Amino acid sequence: MTDKTANAMWGGRFAAGPDAIMEAINASIGFDKRLAKQDIEGSRAHAAMLAATGILSDSDAQAIREGLLTVLSEIEGGTFQFSTALEDIHMNVEARLKEVIGEPAGRLHTARSRNDQVATDFRLWVRDQCDAATTGIEALMRALIAQAEQGADWVMPGFTHLQTAQPVTWGHHMMAYVEMLARDRSRFADARARMNESPLGAAALAGTSFPIDRHMTAAALGFDRPMANSLDAVSDRDFALEFLAAASICAMHLSRFAEELVIWSSAQFRFVRLSDKFSTGSSIMPQKKNPDAAELIRAKIGRIFGANVALMMVMKGLPLTYSKDMQEDKEQVFDAADNLMLALAAMDGMVRDMTANREALAAAAGSGFSTATDLADWLVRVLGLPFRDAHHVTGTLVAMAEAAGKDLPDLSLDQMRSVHPGITQDIFAVLGVDNSVASRISYGGTAPAQVRAQIARWKELLS
Amino acid sequence: MTDKTANAMWGGRFAAGPDAIMEAINASIGFDKRLAKQDIEGSRAHAAMLAATGILSDSDAQAIREGLLTVLSEIEGGTFQFSTALEDIHMNVEARLKEVIGEPAGRLHTARSRNDQVATDFRLWVRDQCDAATTGIEALMRALIAQAEQGADWVMPGFTHLQTAQPVTWGHHMMAYVEMLARDRSRFADARARMNESPLGAAALAGTSFPIDRHMTAAALGFDRPMANSLDAVSDRDFALEFLAAASICAMHLSRFAEELVIWSSAQFRFVRLSDKFSTGSSIMPQKKNPDAAELIRAKIGRIFGANVALMMVMKGLPLTYSKDMQEDKEQVFDAADNLMLALAAMDGMVRDMTANREALAAAAGSGFSTATDLADWLVRVLGLPFRDAHHVTGTLVAMAEAAGKDLPDLSLDQMRSVHPGITQDIFAVLGVDNSVASRISYGGTAPAQVRAQIARWKELLS
Amino acid sequence: MTDKTANAMWGGRFAAGPDAIMEAINASIGFDKRLAKQDIEGSRAHAAMLAATGILSDSDAQAIREGLLTVLSEIEGGTFQFSTALEDIHMNVEARLKEVIGEPAGRLHTARSRNDQVATDFRLWVRDQCDAATTGIEALMRALIAQAEQGADWVMPGFTHLQTAQPVTWGHHMMAYVEMLARDRSRFADARARMNESPLGAAALAGTSFPIDRHMTAAALGFDRPMANSLDAVSDRDFALEFLAAASICAMHLSRFAEELVIWSSAQFRFVRLSDKFSTGSSIMPQKKNPDAAELIRAKIGRIFGANVALMMVMKGLPLTYSKDMQEDKEQVFDAADNLMLALAAMDGMVRDMTANREALAAAAGSGFSTATDLADWLVRVLGLPFRDAHHVTGTLVAMAEAAGKDLPDLSLDQMRSVHPGITQDIFAVLGVDNSVASRISYGGTAPAQVRAQIARWKELLS
Amino acid sequence: MTDKTANAMWGGRFAAGPDAIMEAINASIGFDKRLAKQDIEGSRAHAAMLAATGILSDSDAQAIREGLLTVLSEIEGGTFQFSTALEDIHMNVEARLKEVIGEPAGRLHTARSRNDQVATDFRLWVRDQCDAATTGIEALMRALIAQAEQGADWVMPGFTHLQTAQPVTWGHHMMAYVEMLARDRSRFADARARMNESPLGAAALAGTSFPIDRHMTAAALGFDRPMANSLDAVSDRDFALEFLAAASICAMHLSRFAEELVIWSSAQFRFVRLSDKFSTGSSIMPQKKNPDAAELIRAKIGRIFGANVALMMVMKGLPLTYSKDMQEDKEQVFDAADNLMLALAAMDGMVRDMTANREALAAAAGSGFSTATDLADWLVRVLGLPFRDAHHVTGTLVAMAEAAGKDLPDLSLDQMRSVHPGITQDIFAVLGVDNSVASRISYGGTAPAQVRAQIARWKELLS
Repeated sequence: MTDKTANAMWGGRFAAGPDAIMEAINASIGFDKRLAKQDIEGSRAHAAMLAATGILSDSDAQAIREGLLTVLSEIEGGTFQFSTALEDIHMNVEARLKEVIGEPAGRLHTARSRNDQVATDFRLWVRDQCDAATTGIEALMRALIAQAEQGADWVMPGFTHLQTAQPVTWGHHMMAYVEMLARDRSRFADARARMNESPLGAAALAGTSFPIDRHMTAAALGFDRPMANSLDAVSDRDFALEFLAAASICAMHLSRFAEELVIWSSAQFRFVRLSDKFSTGSSIMPQKKNPDAAELIRAKIGRIFGANVALMMVMKGLPLTYSKDMQEDKEQVFDAADNLMLALAAMDGMVRDMTANREALAAAAGSGFSTATDLADWLVRVLGLPFRDAHHVTGTLVAMAEAAGKDLPDLSLDQMRSVHPGITQDIFAVLGVDNSVASRISYGGTAPAQVRAQIARWKELLS
Repeated sequence: MTDKTANAMWGGRFAAGPDAIMEAINASIGFDKRLAKQDIEGSRAHAAMLAATGILSDSDAQAIREGLLTVLSEIEGGTFQFSTALEDIHMNVEARLKEVIGEPAGRLHTARSRNDQVATDFRLWVRDQCDAATTGIEALMRALIAQAEQGADWVMPGFTHLQTAQPVTWGHHMMAYVEMLARDRSRFADARARMNESPLGAAALAGTSFPIDRHMTAAALGFDRPMANSLDAVSDRDFALEFLAAASICAMHLSRFAEELVIWSSAQFRFVRLSDKFSTGSSIMPQKKNPDAAELIRAKIGRIFGANVALMMVMKGLPLTYSKDMQEDKEQVFDAADNLMLALAAMDGMVRDMTANREALAAAAGSGFSTATDLADWLVRVLGLPFRDAHHVTGTLVAMAEAAGKDLPDLSLDQMRSVHPGITQDIFAVLGVDNSVASRISYGGTAPAQVRAQIARWKELLS
Repeated sequence: MTDKTANAMWGGRFAAGPDAIMEAINASIGFDKRLAKQDIEGSRAHAAMLAATGILSDSDAQAIREGLLTVLSEIEGGTFQFSTALEDIHMNVEARLKEVIGEPAGRLHTARSRNDQVATDFRLWVRDQCDAATTGIEALMRALIAQAEQGADWVMPGFTHLQTAQPVTWGHHMMAYVEMLARDRSRFADARARMNESPLGAAALAGTSFPIDRHMTAAALGFDRPMANSLDAVSDRDFALEFLAAASICAMHLSRFAEELVIWSSAQFRFVRLSDKFSTGSSIMPQKKNPDAAELIRAKIGRIFGANVALMMVMKGLPLTYSKDMQEDKEQVFDAADNLMLALAAMDGMVRDMTANREALAAAAGSGFSTATDLADWLVRVLGLPFRDAHHVTGTLVAMAEAAGKDLPDLSLDQMRSVHPGITQDIFAVLGVDNSVASRISYGGTAPAQVRAQIARWKELLS
Repeated sequence: MTDKTANAMWGGRFAAGPDAIMEAINASIGFDKRLAKQDIEGSRAHAAMLAATGILSDSDAQAIREGLLTVLSEIEGGTFQFSTALEDIHMNVEARLKEVIGEPAGRLHTARSRNDQVATDFRLWVRDQCDAATTGIEALMRALIAQAEQGADWVMPGFTHLQTAQPVTWGHHMMAYVEMLARDRSRFADARARMNESPLGAAALAGTSFPIDRHMTAAALGFDRPMANSLDAVSDRDFALEFLAAASICAMHLSRFAEELVIWSSAQFRFVRLSDKFSTGSSIMPQKKNPDAAELIRAKIGRIFGANVALMMVMKGLPLTYSKDMQEDKEQVFDAADNLMLALAAMDGMVRDMTANREALAAAAGSGFSTATDLADWLVRVLGLPFRDAHHVTGTLVAMAEAAGKDLPDLSLDQMRSVHPGITQDIFAVLGVDNSVASRISYGGTAPAQVRAQIARWKELLS
């Protein structure tokens, strides 16, 4: 296959050939070859339908469908020679098909256009990525559930504002990310369902006068139905934007957990120990064990959401129907998808390998007046104080303890009574971290029983 | 109500009061007062539940619930005095409640925190906006359908690259936007379903030791269920981000149509005439009739997607659970929602009032060799040429016509036969614009029959 | 002043008046009234020029200039009644001017248009914000220098990957932000210089046939020169975008420091104590002292850069010259500027009030094998080892110490010699944190002498 | 060179080797090999300085400097084998250097770190891109000036809101973009000057105890000075962000012109004819001549500004100093720079080759009441009407003409006098398009004389 055939494709109309700059800015084969499998799948379905509707002879369709498999095997085998002069994957495949099967190849493009063809290819590709994201998310959910199961009752500080607020459990914290990821999974599922309509047969933009059967090609490609408006079919990139939006929120969740892992790995926190597999050393500081994977995962939201911004900006204000601007859609989605899958896999591996430092977590959970709320709640529950008054009493006790360099359980009963005479010895029970955690039995609360119930629910749902 | 009560809220712990800068950066009452209705609704549900579970006496709950109605009526009546020193809507309402009903007011905040309270308020607000968006979208869909119905068979140029490609119908073009808006509607529906879980009862972050019933408050507030993890409940802003993502894609669709309206209103196109209601004049050029509303709608994606970027950036890398950064969520969503609803309403009004210039559309549809594809398809269908050959013949004919300053139907049969001898007189039938349009009967194609079928389907769905 | 005059402004051309939706989407007076001072300043300069060039009589110009001062005093005094029907600040001012001085008011708008008028007003406003940013940045630089001066030789851990890398000094760390802010300052200075050209006199877009003197108005308004192309003058919003870009990078710097303050304020780090003025409490956890101001500053990059995205998206693909889309420029810049100034002021206050915990910093600096690099450098410098070999020896020693639960200085000389026999007693000198820091005397290094030199340089530059 | 040497680099500290996922997420050699030239340049300067300061022997430095040239020639010759296991360009080069020159290679990394090394490499690369952008911008400016010169007095419609506003000249319109590009050029110049400081010698973060001379390496690499704070030197990515911000504004300008070219190429406008070199055909519509290059240029702002968003998001909230997140900087800047240069080159080529349709421009300029402002200005200038009154008279005349299906010059003097009796025969002179344009002689106005003055100024400045 040589480049000489290239210009023949869009004809002798142009006196001058595209020069190097135009080729550099215009050709998409450098990246859209990733759509080869989808392109051939779509062409095979199209050829079968053309034959079924009598537009193409059975023998031509047969030749085309078999020839396309040959081309696919060449591409997958790495022997296919891509040509920039042939611009894109569609023309590269068709030109090679012509070399393989000859004249019938020229009949494949009947009743379609590159506009509906690329919309179909790309939609199939993004649909696959929804599935890949789902798989990656579920693997990470399982890794988190395993961590949660192991430490369902390990106490750790619950933070707000990165300040110790109340004791919670390790399992509870892990399961918070399971919830976030479950929403991500559900967003990809919704996006997949919404995008699962076939543009094929919209032709250039207006539909076609050939008696095609769009429902047949839709079914063959696993789409739920053909798209209902041909202008929309070739103009729509919602599916890519919605994928990017879902990917961005997922990447945001990963960035939050990654940030926690970076902070928790610091010498000051020591809450977790990441495995060597996901850390690196320093060329000048041999003692360093850097949480590189966590940092890179934290950063991935940049390029993933950057891709969302890029494509949204491209689509802004484009008149119908297809404009060449839309060719800028693919590289953004490719990069975002690759990096999301990589970030999910890396986080999965990191979570599987990481070790919580149970002692450090427990020690931190018990410091910083973390059970002050338990004290306040006791004042309400047992002494019947209005919450706001209980709050005030507790604040005074915390100030007293802090001034004395003590924690709350270290105050004497007399000291406590000097602030509120109704306080009894029972108070000391609620100031213990394990008791505190065990007491939060409201639905979705941090009590180990609640956490275990959620773990069981999710194991069932993911089984 | 005076500001003196403010500091009492979060106690004598601080020696120094917040100064002006801190108040300016910290207080949210300037904007979160928009959540007053939701805040009071949530508090009323909470109080009812506290009574039902025996945490609060029935009489206290009754006083609280009635007092809150009083406060709400003051706010809605415009007589409520908001205080910046009281920071936020929650404290403003509670402080006023205390003035109205006295001591029981202090019991309302039992077993909850501002963290789950604001999460609940804001979620209710965003849920309402999903409904508002749906209403606005459906109104616009109906306006477009009315335009489509009127001009189901009016021919106009179908563009790719803003070049005339093939004739299509006005109705078909209008219905393309109906499809886009239908996806928008479905995205808001999915987002609404996903966000419709109650954070209330997550308390500060860990749940509570009070025997609350989260399912009861969830049901009272129209939520499908309580959120299953209290840490997630107070940390999650996915619902706001997903709303913004759906709003951004919708705004992108509006920007595309607005761009078309601006171009179509130009002296060069004259495809539509916008009503005076949605145009303005110039202070120096009295003859101007500017499509201001269309331009402003085109621009709205800026601030709507800008809000998406803003909140995504805020959430990036935030450790669990609540951080004050998250207070930056509301103004972005308020502004984006307001502007989306405004843009939908303005587009609705503009579409209802605009007049297509049927003659200009038809004239443009027939020029520019717009039926070249029909010619090529005829060569394939009737003469059995491979598509690529038919393409080449057609290109030669177009070049011939262009060189002669003619359009395709103006070539003589002899001229045509000089390019391909198989061409017959029948060819002239397919070169007519109305025939071209009528022939595109593939599903979703531009044939008036297809367009009318889609109109009927949508009228049924929206009825 | 009543709304009745409104329609008179852009004439009887429109049969129908703008309805409520159009008014809501179209009117800018709700926000562009912030340009009142600049608008009046520009009009006064324009009137003076019109008189100087003989286009206006001196008495008319005098009446206009004095009338405008009256209007300004009404606006500044809060007695001015803004009218939405009059759309924008320009028409509001002019309508009121007519009430105040009568007929000559109608001559003010000679040889200009709202297009060059708003470009001038907004440019003046943004120019002021460059100055405000500079002032805010310099104040913060001084606060940081004061912190640096106090702790020029206080040791603390220098982090990479949030892992202790090498000891540095508090002063050095503070001065790193001074460098960043200095670049911010310089970016605002460059932006200011570039935007300091006058659009006034570009009229609607084409210039004017009146013999105006654009250099005169440019000089009167403090511009360096008039803009050289009238089409560009009314189309350009680079000045706003460049301001937003500079503001975004500055906000990014603030977000980094704010993140550090949040982490440093945690119970695990305890590196700094923020003052009560810039912290808040919790409604349910009385012991909490939350770094709210730091968190809010960290978040401000969201809305500031979100504004940048919004305006960039608005400007994308706009044909020349003025389009109404550009009206969306102001709210974004207003909000970004307000929040940048607020963030700078809050950071300034926080830095002035914060207290470094010198002991905690020193303790952290000495742990975690932080002087391993010093050991490696000693092996190179004294024993002549290639760096890569020295690196390997050091790594082995660190592993040995870690396995023994010790730090590097706790290893015996024999133990060290078992790894490399050339090591001598001298090695223990370089393992001390203070020695380590003092040794980094390369230009810009962390040695107190270097830090003090930089402090002196900056005090001189800012004096 | 084999991968076996890889782990030796950061030592035996890690029991487990990085697995495939970690390698995939962590290794940067796939993209940072683009920094090979800069890396070697920096290392050669570093080696020379180490010798000059006596840290390295002259013979070792000589061997290193020559060996690096060998490595560079291998890379440039395409014979170098990059290894992913060696992670990045720095280690790839150093490992190969060791193979080439043996032991002295291990001494090169003395007194530096990968942190200052990559900061130096990348800064040099971005600095080169500022120069490349300047070159590309100037070429495009020249192409625009050539167009302007040819058509300095060709009339065309000046648009606001895409409505004909006033006649302007082709030259004036071209020169508007010259002004925009001149600001772009000046932004790159400012960014270049600001970034032109050397990070080299900051070492890991704290500086070094070796007696290095940072001014010497700075000078050798063409930097104006060394950076003044070592922590800042390894943490700063402002230079990349500022490059991206300047590139984004430039891309926005290109998007505006590209949008105009797309619109102007439409059958309805026919203002320009783009050359075949920068257009493409359609696979189904042989007559199409699509402005693909213009569309792709219009779209490039997406990925360029998307890169800005990506990197800003990465940098948000990163504590000092180096974090691995920052490795995400390069691909974004590489892609943005490549695409900016490509877009500039394509626009340059397109502008050189495009042909303005002088007749179509003139015809459009004269329609649509485009000289209404001239009429209003005449009423002010000659009859002494206040501008607002003149505006009203003009509006009435336009309405009269429009109702009669005429243009302004087609009204009779009597008709005009029926609106204002002071109008004389002289009015018809100002209603001509050429007269209108010639009259706008205010500085920067559209009069050919003004346009030619600007052309002359720019030719001088660019010579």
